[in-house]
Amino acid sequence: MSKLRNDRLLRALRRKPVDCTPVWIMRQAGRYLPEYRETRKQAGDFLTLCKTPELACEVTLQPLRRFDLDAAIVFSDILTIPDAMGLGLSVNEGEGPRFERAIDSKTAIDALRVPELEDDLGYVFDAVRMIHHVLDGSVPLIGFAGSPWTLATYMVEGQSTRDFARIKALMFEQPQALHALLDILTESVSGYLAAQVKAGADVLMIFDTWGGVLSHTEYREFSLSAMRRSVEALKSDEMTRHIPVILFTKGGGQWFKEMADSGCDALGCDWTTSLAIARDTVGKRVALQGNLDPAVLYASPDVIERAVESVLDDFGAGDGHVFNLGHGITPGVNPDHVRVMVDAVHQKSARS
Amino acid sequence: MSKLRNDRLLRALRRKPVDCTPVWIMRQAGRYLPEYRETRKQAGDFLTLCKTPELACEVTLQPLRRFDLDAAIVFSDILTIPDAMGLGLSVNEGEGPRFERAIDSKTAIDALRVPELEDDLGYVFDAVRMIHHVLDGSVPLIGFAGSPWTLATYMVEGQSTRDFARIKALMFEQPQALHALLDILTESVSGYLAAQVKAGADVLMIFDTWGGVLSHTEYREFSLSAMRRSVEALKSDEMTRHIPVILFTKGGGQWFKEMADSGCDALGCDWTTSLAIARDTVGKRVALQGNLDPAVLYASPDVIERAVESVLDDFGAGDGHVFNLGHGITPGVNPDHVRVMVDAVHQKSARS
Repeated sequence: MSKLRNDRLLRALRRKPVDCTPVWIMRQAGRYLPEYRETRKQAGDFLTLCKTPELACEVTLQPLRRFDLDAAIVFSDILTIPDAMGLGLSVNEGEGPRFERAIDSKTAIDALRVPELEDDLGYVFDAVRMIHHVLDGSVPLIGFAGSPWTLATYMVEGQSTRDFARIKALMFEQPQALHALLDILTESVSGYLAAQVKAGADVLMIFDTWGGVLSHTEYREFSLSAMRRSVEALKSDEMTRHIPVILFTKGGGQWFKEMADSGCDALGCDWTTSLAIARDTVGKRVALQGNLDPAVLYASPDVIERAVESVLDDFGAGDGHVFNLGHGITPGVNPDHVRVMVDAVHQKSARS
Repeated sequence: MSKLRNDRLLRALRRKPVDCTPVWIMRQAGRYLPEYRETRKQAGDFLTLCKTPELACEVTLQPLRRFDLDAAIVFSDILTIPDAMGLGLSVNEGEGPRFERAIDSKTAIDALRVPELEDDLGYVFDAVRMIHHVLDGSVPLIGFAGSPWTLATYMVEGQSTRDFARIKALMFEQPQALHALLDILTESVSGYLAAQVKAGADVLMIFDTWGGVLSHTEYREFSLSAMRRSVEALKSDEMTRHIPVILFTKGGGQWFKEMADSGCDALGCDWTTSLAIARDTVGKRVALQGNLDPAVLYASPDVIERAVESVLDDFGAGDGHVFNLGHGITPGVNPDHVRVMVDAVHQKSARS
């Protein structure tokens, strides 16, 4: 912690006092930045960009050159794990991810293996090492993974879906098969996150993009329990136990009580959840991250500043707030508006 | 109430004892039924089906011939009001609704008028009268409307959207213009619902499909407040004050406390909300409707039966539960599975 010149994020995640509220942005290295689009063009396609450590490092650092952000997050994709399992990932602009070999049977699940970390995912750790080196302690580096449930959803659906019919059919008809899949993914996620720490990540985040399509009981059984086991594995390993872990379930605001009991250090909030109510719910157990509606960034600077203020006010006085959007930044946003937001967070939250 | 031979729905909405839990299904008259697809083909297109009272009556009654449902719901669309305002609605299979003249300015909002009910929407009331006549007191008839916010969303976006960029830009940049639009829609919705009651509707429901894309504060300001005013108008009119009103905000589980204070009689719950937790939240103020995940209907009969039991158990003992799906039934469902669900609700909830 002391080795970082800017440790606001780590302090806030541990609910310690800060000089002002730290801020970073989900998908801060992304298509809204012209320099990102340039590097992406150079890479040829999205996966090449992810798999070329020099390029992943470059796009990771781009937003930090523009904005006064309090963290970097390694540029990668949540689907690197199923890709490493041999499912044949492709990502096409506008269409979303697609797997050539989606999981369609218990037999296919039984054939899966936890990836060999250095052999199959070494490019991610290379990128983390490289970014860690270039950052040189200026700000912390966040490593991440998709949640086991979210990864399972993509692996079984094979592509973007609106009704989640395949994964839910598996859940209803063959819950034990789904648990077997989640077990493999839970072990993979824990190992993958631990390896990112070994390579230089200072904070970890688990993105549960699709936990919110489950009922309250299914969420606990199929999403939260797997995340909890991943967190427990990290917290019982000497190398990773002191690394703050952020859980983010999009649409999970109703389940914060159980999520806060998972052993994680912070919960990501989408913008439907009041931070004030969330604080009442979680007490002092965890910090909170969020939760400006990404659509606010399309508005004018004064609207953005008032909206930032409103999020800060909603959290209120006290420690344990990391400012972020409630979901990833969208491609059409004007980068100048991002600067307005980042600067407003620091100015309006400055402790006197 | 006494004129109905099956008044389970009305009793449950008023939190009175019932012999077994009433059940109906959102979009129960729909594409999963071969006889619906046949009538739809006969009509030529979706809007002609809505606008031809004989055909709307026919498809409304189709699910009641197959299943032991405790209510009919008039076959119509939530976008009849903006269509009657002259926005030029078209609905194409697979693509969703589209307006030829979307609302793109304050000037366009100022030009809008509350529709002339009998002139512009008479076909809906004709259908209600016809269905009411044919039902002849066998089960209650539900009338409905889209919420002002949800209608505004479609009117401003002009078509289906994933990011709600236009309506949110209006909300952030010109909140007074959006309020002017919501005022017109609130008045239209109240009048439209009252006219359905006059034509024979026994219960009313307001569908707030898109309230869940708002933040907690925006939801109160732009969606709930308009619904509350619609409900107040209905509750202050001698003709409609005794008609139960159900509010349903998809994704609104976090806001049940405020929703229950709106003056409505029941809240619709999507499947992410625990009915037990919702009951704790709303107390005895309102009944609850829901909330089986529609995807369960793709599962096998024994899974469906267990899932029905689990929803009934989640609500627990006591009055005030209307069984439904947590969202509309999807086109691919096997009608035999719907029968399994409906019969299981009645059997497993039968009071001895």
